[in-house]
Amino acid sequence: MSITLQDCRTRDAQDPLRALRDHFALPPGVIYLDGNSLGVAPKAAAARVADVVTREWGTDLIKSWNTASWFDLPQRLGNQLAPLIGAGQDEVVCTDSTSINLYKVLSAALNIAREDSPARKRIVSERSNFPTDLYIAEGLCKERGLELVLVEPEEIAASLTSDVAVLMLTHVNYRTGAMHDMAAITAAAHAQGILCVWDLAHSAGAVPVDLNGAGADFSIGCGYKYLNGGPGAPAFVWVHPRHADRFWQPLSGWWGHAAPFAFTPDYQPAPGITRYLCGTQPIISLSALQCGLDVFTAAQSLGGMTALRTKSLALTDLFIQLVEERCAGHGLGLATPREHAQRGSQVCLTRDEGAGVNGQGSGAYAIVQALIARGVIGDFRKGDGGTGRHKDILRFGFTPLYLGFEDVWNAVEHLRQVLEGGEWQKAEFNQTHAVT
Amino acid sequence: MSITLQDCRTRDAQDPLRALRDHFALPPGVIYLDGNSLGVAPKAAAARVADVVTREWGTDLIKSWNTASWFDLPQRLGNQLAPLIGAGQDEVVCTDSTSINLYKVLSAALNIAREDSPARKRIVSERSNFPTDLYIAEGLCKERGLELVLVEPEEIAASLTSDVAVLMLTHVNYRTGAMHDMAAITAAAHAQGILCVWDLAHSAGAVPVDLNGAGADFSIGCGYKYLNGGPGAPAFVWVHPRHADRFWQPLSGWWGHAAPFAFTPDYQPAPGITRYLCGTQPIISLSALQCGLDVFTAAQSLGGMTALRTKSLALTDLFIQLVEERCAGHGLGLATPREHAQRGSQVCLTRDEGAGVNGQGSGAYAIVQALIARGVIGDFRKGDGGTGRHKDILRFGFTPLYLGFEDVWNAVEHLRQVLEGGEWQKAEFNQTHAVT
Repeated sequence: MSITLQDCRTRDAQDPLRALRDHFALPPGVIYLDGNSLGVAPKAAAARVADVVTREWGTDLIKSWNTASWFDLPQRLGNQLAPLIGAGQDEVVCTDSTSINLYKVLSAALNIAREDSPARKRIVSERSNFPTDLYIAEGLCKERGLELVLVEPEEIAASLTSDVAVLMLTHVNYRTGAMHDMAAITAAAHAQGILCVWDLAHSAGAVPVDLNGAGADFSIGCGYKYLNGGPGAPAFVWVHPRHADRFWQPLSGWWGHAAPFAFTPDYQPAPGITRYLCGTQPIISLSALQCGLDVFTAAQSLGGMTALRTKSLALTDLFIQLVEERCAGHGLGLATPREHAQRGSQVCLTRDEGAGVNGQGSGAYAIVQALIARGVIGDFRKGDGGTGRHKDILRFGFTPLYLGFEDVWNAVEHLRQVLEGGEWQKAEFNQTHAVT
Repeated sequence: MSITLQDCRTRDAQDPLRALRDHFALPPGVIYLDGNSLGVAPKAAAARVADVVTREWGTDLIKSWNTASWFDLPQRLGNQLAPLIGAGQDEVVCTDSTSINLYKVLSAALNIAREDSPARKRIVSERSNFPTDLYIAEGLCKERGLELVLVEPEEIAASLTSDVAVLMLTHVNYRTGAMHDMAAITAAAHAQGILCVWDLAHSAGAVPVDLNGAGADFSIGCGYKYLNGGPGAPAFVWVHPRHADRFWQPLSGWWGHAAPFAFTPDYQPAPGITRYLCGTQPIISLSALQCGLDVFTAAQSLGGMTALRTKSLALTDLFIQLVEERCAGHGLGLATPREHAQRGSQVCLTRDEGAGVNGQGSGAYAIVQALIARGVIGDFRKGDGGTGRHKDILRFGFTPLYLGFEDVWNAVEHLRQVLEGGEWQKAEFNQTHAVT
């Protein structure tokens, strides 16, 4: 029997996490399915940031390094984040950007792996990994005369050979929402003496992660997607304690020094994860990140990440089912795995090349634009134009903290109307691909 | 004839820059002489940041990459900053931290210098350079098997030998306020085939700088000191156009890509300074920086950096003169050069070892603490305890944008009272050296 709008409303009424939605400043008239790109603002952020600007900076000025504990902020936020990713206390710091943190941990991983086995000269990653991760790896390889090997997901196992130093993967793929089995892949890599770096950009706050349980080596992730930390919020970095003291990461700035206020001319790395700090952090943005983390702290008493995962899968299951029931016959396909264990918190729809206006392109970009014009915010990711395995994608992120089942119903209803009315074929929606 | 309080008030009344003070949210009861550590908040910052949080992030969400031009923000701020440092348009970006930007330019400088002359294996810097600069250089040397050579200021000329790749200096010394002759030193280095990296942390917005006029190669600097960009505001980076396209800096993230939204797996650096961007920037903090830069834009019609420099020298001259007239006999000395051409926008007083309570230490820390308790905010920098050339320092920064001549009078009057009344000898001011 088909699902009805009333069914969705009933599920919202029964949702034990429904109250969390009230923590967010959801813009009126919008169904926001892009929390995997930039999370919605927690209501607390405006007041928190105002306090940082007017009191901490404005009134207390330099004293706030002590009185507002600016100096501990990267560690305090790291400790607040740690339970979401299976990290221990004092194993995580929030700092810098994801790309820069990747440079730190990839440098460390390469140094450790190659100190043990100098013949290991490769980094293996996925060809469809998030590009900035590949760019950082490419830069390091170029600098050190190493090789970056890019493979398809099904080729990962076979690529773990004795000349590989580091396997660098993003846990949930940004294009497809496909999720790797972190524990199994880490074990397979370790069996070959290979260290694992996991990017949790699309995982932290979206799916349960257990870095220590999986025996992972290094991890980094993003503060502004599912963690709702604000635009360009500082990222995070985790290093397994067995590695943390072993290597002096290359961005050796004052905040990672063992005695940062001794002002000695020589660098002595702080013990543990603190050495992964570098320069002075953007305190206003870093403070806003705390408001995002506070919602997860509030979610703890409602079941935490386990309950959020249950709801996330229910939302994405519902979206898939409704699209298939109500939007059939419009050339849409599913890029995201149906298998729960392989799915992140997003659903990506494909559209075939040639399904666009006058048989040109896929029309996926125009469909996304038509949805945005209706207040349904998803995004578009370009495929390879039919030259390879990647089709154009309509990407929809589902944040269980603030989305409900009726939102999913309404989003699919808008999609149905856009497709059936041919609305996406209007010139205004077909103009350009310059979308972020 | 001695200067009087009335003289100072007269000078304030005649100060053509006096109106700029109204741009700042100066805390009541405070004379803030620490703008060289964290600048005062511009009044506009609270509203600007609130707008970023509630409208750009809160309402417009992901669209703000385009509608609020987040994507151009590092370049727009860089262009606004450029005239303050003698840089051209599209030569500067505001991004990341000073330490991280130093890593980028120092890597680039080393690669370029050593590509031309592989035998050049040294970085030369000052022993009393700001420590984080030395730490970054030490890290790079360790990574690449190079040598960091630290010299005293008077030894710089002799250290420019044919095995040196890069001379890395901070234009205005953070401890003493001594300023290098950028043009002369750059010319001397270039004559030996050595590239120059200039840190403008204590120069940008404090003294006129002419990077292009001096023929400098690379430069970085801080957004939160004299630029008043907010705590941990993103820093800036400048590369001379002759070098900008030559090297792929190692932090090769998505924002420095030639086509960042093409999502190609391979890195192609953007032309020019844009390739010195890496990952996603903290938009809230970056937006606050604009408020600091806007005050300099407003200062343009009042004579800009030339007028600010005239006032800065008048303020520091006055401070030196008043301290010498009114605080004599208390063991204070002057660490900052009297010569205008060698002085930044700060005055550092020394105090002899043995001048502290019961002949222990210098008492400088306690004097600074006693001043802070009176609302006169300066800071303390520890010396070498009499083992070398560095005495304990009382450091006072003078920001001509918001300080007046009466402020200087009052600060010195507080210092006189603290010294003459023996107030600094109280136990509460002598407790600890854990000052930031």
